[in-house]
Amino acid sequence: MSAIAVKEVKERVIADNDAVAESLRGKLKEKKVFLVNLMASPGAGKTTTLVRTIDALKDEYKIGVMEADVDSSVDAETISKTGAKVIQLHTGGSCHMDADMTERGLDSLGIEDLDVVFLENIGNLVCPAEFDIGAAKKVMILSVPEGHDKPLKYPLMFTISDCLLINKMDTAPVFDFDMDLLKEYVGKLNPTMPIYPVSSLKGDGFEEWISWLKNEIKTWKEEA
Amino acid sequence: MSAIAVKEVKERVIADNDAVAESLRGKLKEKKVFLVNLMASPGAGKTTTLVRTIDALKDEYKIGVMEADVDSSVDAETISKTGAKVIQLHTGGSCHMDADMTERGLDSLGIEDLDVVFLENIGNLVCPAEFDIGAAKKVMILSVPEGHDKPLKYPLMFTISDCLLINKMDTAPVFDFDMDLLKEYVGKLNPTMPIYPVSSLKGDGFEEWISWLKNEIKTWKEEA
Repeated sequence: MSAIAVKEVKERVIADNDAVAESLRGKLKEKKVFLVNLMASPGAGKTTTLVRTIDALKDEYKIGVMEADVDSSVDAETISKTGAKVIQLHTGGSCHMDADMTERGLDSLGIEDLDVVFLENIGNLVCPAEFDIGAAKKVMILSVPEGHDKPLKYPLMFTISDCLLINKMDTAPVFDFDMDLLKEYVGKLNPTMPIYPVSSLKGDGFEEWISWLKNEIKTWKEEA
Repeated sequence: MSAIAVKEVKERVIADNDAVAESLRGKLKEKKVFLVNLMASPGAGKTTTLVRTIDALKDEYKIGVMEADVDSSVDAETISKTGAKVIQLHTGGSCHMDADMTERGLDSLGIEDLDVVFLENIGNLVCPAEFDIGAAKKVMILSVPEGHDKPLKYPLMFTISDCLLINKMDTAPVFDFDMDLLKEYVGKLNPTMPIYPVSSLKGDGFEEWISWLKNEIKTWKEEA
């Protein structure tokens, strides 16, 4: 039997999501909790990326994870093996998390003892991009098998993200993925966003991504 | 300059999508037009699958394609090279097509001279599953890189589909994809759904999928 706590966070009608998000970001800053909104397509490697990222941070920070899914607890079970504090959120069919749902999730997780919290959002490149959840930073993963044309088709996600990981670089030899073209498309939407090619399975490229993340956490805590 | 027609089909408030869908399905049956709702994650290979499928059907049927996207016309341009009649639909940010949007798209495409129409839905495993668009059949593509655990996380999509293609089988050697486990998970949600492993890039496995599709088209037209 799984020991993972599951919290139902169905979407409520919220007039002004941005105001709830801004208020939540303020509260998190006061508590010096750095919240990351991790977004990607289904199967882009969000959970595998999280496991390796937690491993790289856990000596320095106390880490919590909220796994948002329409159903199931498979990812939360995987994450719990890292030693991070974890909760599974079920969205009751909703295709995204909003700030109100995130705040209820954080209340259930309990963040008093945490430094960094990752929200693994629903696997979806459309809806999650439209909702500020109150995170300090928004991180997007695009995986090599999805193709380099995705910025053309899901421009909002690439526009609002703060950092882009290109995952599954180890499989690049079997796919026709043009990194230069990807960078050109992303550059038109979000010219200053850092792009880190990684393999979350093998660990390639993690140094630069972890270095970026640690620097952002440090800056956030200093500003708090 | 692209010659692809683009139609904006923003979502309207529709009280009863199922009723609109049922009515549209009736009209399409009268006109003997077989509409396929093709759904998958971003980058699962919907367009590549469509190109090869059109190639296998075009001697027998007159084919139309509606490419639904939040933005861009890249897929419609690819499809237009097959000789199929094609229109690009822009959903104005909506994460899915509904029956009303589909009907407006069909009106713009013009279906009087067509036998089969494919709607390539928005790349998303959550929202499109919730909306009956009036199609004769719903076809889902899952690609090998996404992983065999997806039925656990997006159960509705696997439950409502009529046929499942497992695409990118040519890349199976570099991924840890367990076909038996996938079939076990799918079997619990949708025990009679046919599952066809294919490579839309190489053409492997297409005979069985095309044979299934031709049989469904024949049955539909006989019933009309």
